[in-house]
Amino acid sequence: MSDDVSGVPGSLMAAEIAEQPQVIERLTTQGRAGCIDAARWVRDREPRFVLLAARGTSDHAALYLKYLVEVRLGLPAGLMSPSTITAYGARPDLRDVLVVALSQSGGSPDLSRTVEVARECGATTLALTNNAESALAAAADVHLDVLAGPERAVAATKSYTAELLASWLLVDAWTGGTGAAAQGLAHVVAHELDRRAEVAALASRFRFTDRVLLTGRGYSYPTAREAALKLMETSYVAAHAFSGADLLHGPLAMIDPDLPVVAVAPEGAGSRALRPVLELLHERGTDLTVVGGSGSLDLATASFALDDAVPEELAPVASIAPLQLLALEMALARGHDPDRPRGLSKVTRTL
Amino acid sequence: MSDDVSGVPGSLMAAEIAEQPQVIERLTTQGRAGCIDAARWVRDREPRFVLLAARGTSDHAALYLKYLVEVRLGLPAGLMSPSTITAYGARPDLRDVLVVALSQSGGSPDLSRTVEVARECGATTLALTNNAESALAAAADVHLDVLAGPERAVAATKSYTAELLASWLLVDAWTGGTGAAAQGLAHVVAHELDRRAEVAALASRFRFTDRVLLTGRGYSYPTAREAALKLMETSYVAAHAFSGADLLHGPLAMIDPDLPVVAVAPEGAGSRALRPVLELLHERGTDLTVVGGSGSLDLATASFALDDAVPEELAPVASIAPLQLLALEMALARGHDPDRPRGLSKVTRTL
Repeated sequence: MSDDVSGVPGSLMAAEIAEQPQVIERLTTQGRAGCIDAARWVRDREPRFVLLAARGTSDHAALYLKYLVEVRLGLPAGLMSPSTITAYGARPDLRDVLVVALSQSGGSPDLSRTVEVARECGATTLALTNNAESALAAAADVHLDVLAGPERAVAATKSYTAELLASWLLVDAWTGGTGAAAQGLAHVVAHELDRRAEVAALASRFRFTDRVLLTGRGYSYPTAREAALKLMETSYVAAHAFSGADLLHGPLAMIDPDLPVVAVAPEGAGSRALRPVLELLHERGTDLTVVGGSGSLDLATASFALDDAVPEELAPVASIAPLQLLALEMALARGHDPDRPRGLSKVTRTL
Repeated sequence: MSDDVSGVPGSLMAAEIAEQPQVIERLTTQGRAGCIDAARWVRDREPRFVLLAARGTSDHAALYLKYLVEVRLGLPAGLMSPSTITAYGARPDLRDVLVVALSQSGGSPDLSRTVEVARECGATTLALTNNAESALAAAADVHLDVLAGPERAVAATKSYTAELLASWLLVDAWTGGTGAAAQGLAHVVAHELDRRAEVAALASRFRFTDRVLLTGRGYSYPTAREAALKLMETSYVAAHAFSGADLLHGPLAMIDPDLPVVAVAPEGAGSRALRPVLELLHERGTDLTVVGGSGSLDLATASFALDDAVPEELAPVASIAPLQLLALEMALARGHDPDRPRGLSKVTRTL
C-alpha cells in the first residue's frame, strides 16, 4: 500500500510517471549489458518456441514481447495460462521452449510455481523483474533486472516501460542489434510528460463518462490494453480494449455516440491496419481520441500527437506515457486518489 | 444480416440457441468420425507446439482448445496474433507446429492468409469451421466441419458450442479416448434451455445496469469471455471478463456494489481456484451471480445451478447456454433486437 507522507493524492503515481525518462536512460546505458548477456545465454540454447507468463500490467509487456519475438525473431510464441499448471497439474513437454516470466515484484507464487514446473518440464527459463531478490528471479535459470528502482505506487507505470524496453533490448541484442534505435527515447518521453496540460484537457472531456473503449493494432494493442487497465484501477472507469480486428467482431455494436473511443496509433504498419476501423468509427460520428502519429490525427475528435520519428516497434515505450497521465488526471478529476485504489495492494499474490 | 420473416425480435438467435442439443447430438454421433480422422492425421505429424488462430467468438473456442491442448495433450500452445503475419510480414519458423484456425464462416481474409503463410512456413494446418466450402477450409491441409448447420443470427451461439465440442472430440480422439464423456451433453443442455424462466429472472435484475463483470478460471475463463461478448453485442452492456487471477491485478478496484459480477464456476479445479476470489467479492458485498456448481452457490446473490455431473473439461459446452439466454433476455428486456445488433454483419472481414 502507498505510504506517501505528502498526502497529495496521486503524488506517488505522478512521481513514478515522471521518473520514466531516467529509467529509460538507465536501462539503455547501464542495463544494456545485462540484456546482452541474457540474450546471448538464451540464444545459445536455440529455443524454437517462446512462452510468456505474466499477470496484470506485466501481461501487457508480455504481449508486446510476443509481437517482438514473432516479428523480429521469427519464433512462434504464446502467452501461458498458468492455471493449466497450477490448477490442472499440466506437465507439458517444454524441450526447446524458452519461458519468459515478467513481473514487477517477482512475488506472485503462481508465476514462480509456473517457472519451476517449466524448468522441470525441460524449458529454458528467464525471469524479467524489478526485484533481483525475488522468488521469481531465483526460480528462473537467468534473471534480467529491469532496473526501474523501487516502485511504490499501486498502479505500475515506470516498471511497465522498463519491462517493455528491457524486452526490446533483449530481442535487439538477440538479433545482433546495437540498441541504437532506443537512444532518443528518454528525450521523447520527457517531452511528452511536459505536455501534461494537453492530457488534462483530454481528461476533462472524460470527466463524466463511466465507459471508455480503447483500440490499437499490432505493437500498439498491448498499449491499449495497459491504458485500459490503468483507467480501471485508478478511475474505476469501465475501460475496454480490443484489437482493431476483434473490435469488428461484436464489440462494435456497443459503440454509440456516448461511448468515447481512444485509439493508440503511432505511425507504422499497425496504424495503417487500424485506419479502416478508425474511418468506420469516424463515419459513424464516434467521439474518437487519437493518441497517435500524423497519419491518424485527421480522424480525431481530440488528440495527443506522438513523435512520428520513434520506430514503431519502440513506440509502446513512449505512447503509454500520455495514457498513464490520462489515468492519473481522470482519477484526480473524479476525486479519487490513484495512490490508494480501492481494494488493491502492490504485490498481488495469486495461487 | 438477419432476414427472418417472423419479425419477432431475437427469434433467430433464440432458434439457434434452442438448436444446440441437436447440434451436440449430431456432432457426437455423425461428426465424431471426422474428428477421429483429423486427430489421427495431426497426431501422425507429431506436432510439438500448437498455435491457434481465430477472432471474436471463435477466439474463445480457441482459448478453450488451448487449455485442452496444454492439459490433455501436454503440448505448449499459444494464440496467434494474425497481425504479425498480415501487417508486419512475419515469417516464423513453424516446423513441428500445428496451426489450428477456428471460424464459423471461414470467410475472414486475415485468417485464410495466416493459414496460407503458416503452411509456407512449415506448419501443419487444420481449419475448424462451419462451412466446408469456405476459403479457410480450402487454405488448410485438413478441414474439420463442426456441422452446426447454417447460422443466420449475427450473435453466434450454436456454432460456438459446436466449435467447443469439436475441439474436445478432436483432443479426446488424439489421446485415444472413446468420446464417451460427451454422451449426456445434449440432454444436459436441453434441460438448461428448459429453465428459461430462471434466466429471465436473472436478466430482470440486470435491467438497468450498463456494466457487468464476468469471471471464471481455467476451462471456464473462455466461457466468461464469450458471455461478455454476447452481452456486448446484443445488449450493448459494457461487459468485462477477467480470469479470477487477473481480476486481482487491478480490475478489482473497479468493483463496487453497483457493478454486478457474474462468475462461471462449474465444479472442478477451476472453480476451486476461483473460490478465494469469490469469497473476497462476497465479503465485500458484491452482487454476485453464480452460474456454477454446488460448491460455489453458497456465495451467490443470485444463481443458475449447473449439473455437477458434467466433467469439468466438457462443462464449457453446457455452461454457455444459460449465458446465451441471459444475453438474449437482457437485449429483449431493453427493447433491442439481438438479431439486428447495431453495425454488425454476420461475416466479419478483417484484413
